[in-house]
Amino acid sequence: MNKQLEHIIEYMNAMNHSDIKKLVEDLNIDDLIYEWLNLEEEQRIKIFLLLENERKLILMENLSIEEQERLIESLSVEKARLFLREMEPDDLADFIQNVSPEIRKAVWQNLSEESKKETLFLLRFDEDDAAGLMTPRYVALQSARTVSQALSFIRRTAKEVETIYYIYVIDQMKRLIGVLSLRDLLFADDETRIDSIMKRKIISVRVDTDQEEAAKVLESYDLLALPVVDNYSRLLGIITVDDVIDVIREEQTEDVYKMGAMEGSADKYVETSVWKLVKKRTPWLIVLLIFGTITTNVTSHYESLLMSFSFLIIFLPIITQTGGNSGNQSSTLMIRGLATGDLRFRDIGKVASKELAVGIIMGICTGIVILIRSFFLPPGVEIYQAFTIGISLTFVVLFSAIIGALAPLIIHRLGFDPTVMSAPLMATVIDVCGLTIYFEIAKLFLKF
Amino acid sequence: MNKQLEHIIEYMNAMNHSDIKKLVEDLNIDDLIYEWLNLEEEQRIKIFLLLENERKLILMENLSIEEQERLIESLSVEKARLFLREMEPDDLADFIQNVSPEIRKAVWQNLSEESKKETLFLLRFDEDDAAGLMTPRYVALQSARTVSQALSFIRRTAKEVETIYYIYVIDQMKRLIGVLSLRDLLFADDETRIDSIMKRKIISVRVDTDQEEAAKVLESYDLLALPVVDNYSRLLGIITVDDVIDVIREEQTEDVYKMGAMEGSADKYVETSVWKLVKKRTPWLIVLLIFGTITTNVTSHYESLLMSFSFLIIFLPIITQTGGNSGNQSSTLMIRGLATGDLRFRDIGKVASKELAVGIIMGICTGIVILIRSFFLPPGVEIYQAFTIGISLTFVVLFSAIIGALAPLIIHRLGFDPTVMSAPLMATVIDVCGLTIYFEIAKLFLKF
Repeated sequence: MNKQLEHIIEYMNAMNHSDIKKLVEDLNIDDLIYEWLNLEEEQRIKIFLLLENERKLILMENLSIEEQERLIESLSVEKARLFLREMEPDDLADFIQNVSPEIRKAVWQNLSEESKKETLFLLRFDEDDAAGLMTPRYVALQSARTVSQALSFIRRTAKEVETIYYIYVIDQMKRLIGVLSLRDLLFADDETRIDSIMKRKIISVRVDTDQEEAAKVLESYDLLALPVVDNYSRLLGIITVDDVIDVIREEQTEDVYKMGAMEGSADKYVETSVWKLVKKRTPWLIVLLIFGTITTNVTSHYESLLMSFSFLIIFLPIITQTGGNSGNQSSTLMIRGLATGDLRFRDIGKVASKELAVGIIMGICTGIVILIRSFFLPPGVEIYQAFTIGISLTFVVLFSAIIGALAPLIIHRLGFDPTVMSAPLMATVIDVCGLTIYFEIAKLFLKF
Repeated sequence: MNKQLEHIIEYMNAMNHSDIKKLVEDLNIDDLIYEWLNLEEEQRIKIFLLLENERKLILMENLSIEEQERLIESLSVEKARLFLREMEPDDLADFIQNVSPEIRKAVWQNLSEESKKETLFLLRFDEDDAAGLMTPRYVALQSARTVSQALSFIRRTAKEVETIYYIYVIDQMKRLIGVLSLRDLLFADDETRIDSIMKRKIISVRVDTDQEEAAKVLESYDLLALPVVDNYSRLLGIITVDDVIDVIREEQTEDVYKMGAMEGSADKYVETSVWKLVKKRTPWLIVLLIFGTITTNVTSHYESLLMSFSFLIIFLPIITQTGGNSGNQSSTLMIRGLATGDLRFRDIGKVASKELAVGIIMGICTGIVILIRSFFLPPGVEIYQAFTIGISLTFVVLFSAIIGALAPLIIHRLGFDPTVMSAPLMATVIDVCGLTIYFEIAKLFLKF
């Protein structure tokens, strides 16, 4: 454990309040988050209470909802009120949606009228759309204002808004008609009208845009905040860059889980119950199993071949495994390309010819390796048997590379998520076809 | 293809310069990036030349180095000079490091004295460290300045710096001693000294910090920029949030590739040559193959069992496949947890007991499914054979879940990257142990 944190825990009960508070103030918040679950309940609450409000918020953002509830409960009514006032409206709305009814009631009573209004406004929208990320605390001005009016308005409201670095210009109908940065304002003459210096080409997203889509827009234009508008172009809120980073991270975790054949969700492992883990993993395992049993039919079809040439059985696991690896590589490349937008269905021709070339080379390389391995090392087989294995593997690897690449493109084209769908379908298709190729080539070679 | 872009291409040669320029100005840059590789060489250059400098930069950032070179070459000397002047110093340094020697020379000659100095400064550091992301264009002031002096300094320099939203305060030795936001400045009285309102607790990273580490720091404190200091706390540059987002995205792609058993690199598929793809994929496929052939020794050891009970052969592929899936799930959870910092080696006890519980439940579920499947559906086996398969699978799934979870933790503990190492080691260990469990339980049941 971190030295500073150890100190704090050691002296927590011995030192007086102001001394221990100083120690806590010097504590790195990242270290605290890292060690959080290893602290005792009582220690957590004590340290939490000693943190400044700003750092309380950073800590809370990194904890589970259950943990957040427990901490909020530990605050006195007055402290809770002060604390909630500093929470960003979008975080507050998320929090209120997720906590237990009792806590929700208590929190609600402690909100200012302003916060209640903001929260009710945000709760109207879908949590998973761009709306779920937006805050209504932005700077918006009518176009007729001058630069000096704008600056004094910003000075007056800066405490209440999330960013003062972008100023949005709206018309009488609240429609977004322009944007300027604080930088632009600082450069302009005091009496200039803001609509004469504002940028009219506005990058914005609609309120029902997908969160990941909104993140990509902010990202490709290197913005610090992105305005969210309704169907009539009226400004509803802004999404700030820190929320976008969170979206990117969560998306990342979800994709990795899906690739590992699990339900995609961004929960932390240590905080997930056994029951939740079972629910997340078992369905996929069973789906894969049921599809996968088609291989038993294929293998049983070639039973007499296998009984006559038992060396084929010995290499069965490595043939299917290598075919699976080859298919896995190409499908990973496709899934990633589709996710980042670098690849599309119409690239299918290019992909097929590339995978054909790559597959041939990889097939020959792996074929040679297994040929040498099976001839020279135990259990050791005859040279004609080694050739049978080598040539079969060549074709299995080639075929798997091509299927592994084309399947995700086609699945994506049909409107399904290739990250989820590829694993069960492909594993089965590759196994079934791989086994068939293996047995058929063996039959040909062994003149069975 | 996008309608606007189609229009532009159609009228490119027919319309006069200013009309076509207007069309290009209205074009969404995201659409352009998306379609870029489908445009002809000549069309690309024409459109590029018509873009405003700012949008030229956004486009360039999203293209490969080869493509960037070609575009730079298309610019006239004078235009290239103007364009390079607008490139951020960190991007410029990256560009210069990666282009061909001829282009490098041409670019260098077109740089201003100021840019040459900045670039030389940045080239001193390692591209992969925090230094590789930093720009020397920040606002730094001595502590004795007043708020009004600071504001007028910012107005004078704003054009040349990357962000004016954070102002860094340094002492005579250039050591970073405080930071304040533009927001703080706007609120303070004109005559206030900046060192009386600055924050003295500064979040910064050392110049040799890992890029991903630096990204995490900026992220967890929700900063817009992060100062980079040397061993003596002297301010060298700042990392801005847009560069951090790029790092997170690249890291994501690399991790996904590693999990797909390939070399992790963030190249785009369509731009990667066959040869590069072969180099990236074949070594892993062969390593996995060589390790994997241990299964041939295991299977050959049980050859007489398999020849006596041929139904065991039929279920061989599905048993190893399901074991692999189960192990893959738990190792994915571990790898992700280790990557995000939510998991550590000392959690190994918790992990083991959780996986034991989850594994037992999943094992029993999959065991029942295969029992029913193998008894009722073709190829169909005797009831005692179905029980043999079901019970074996239960243990294989349980065992794989546990190994899949513990292996990455141990590999990480030993100082290796579990994302890379887990795949080959685990696939082999799980296959070898899975087959042994399968055969041994079968022997027990069949009294062989």
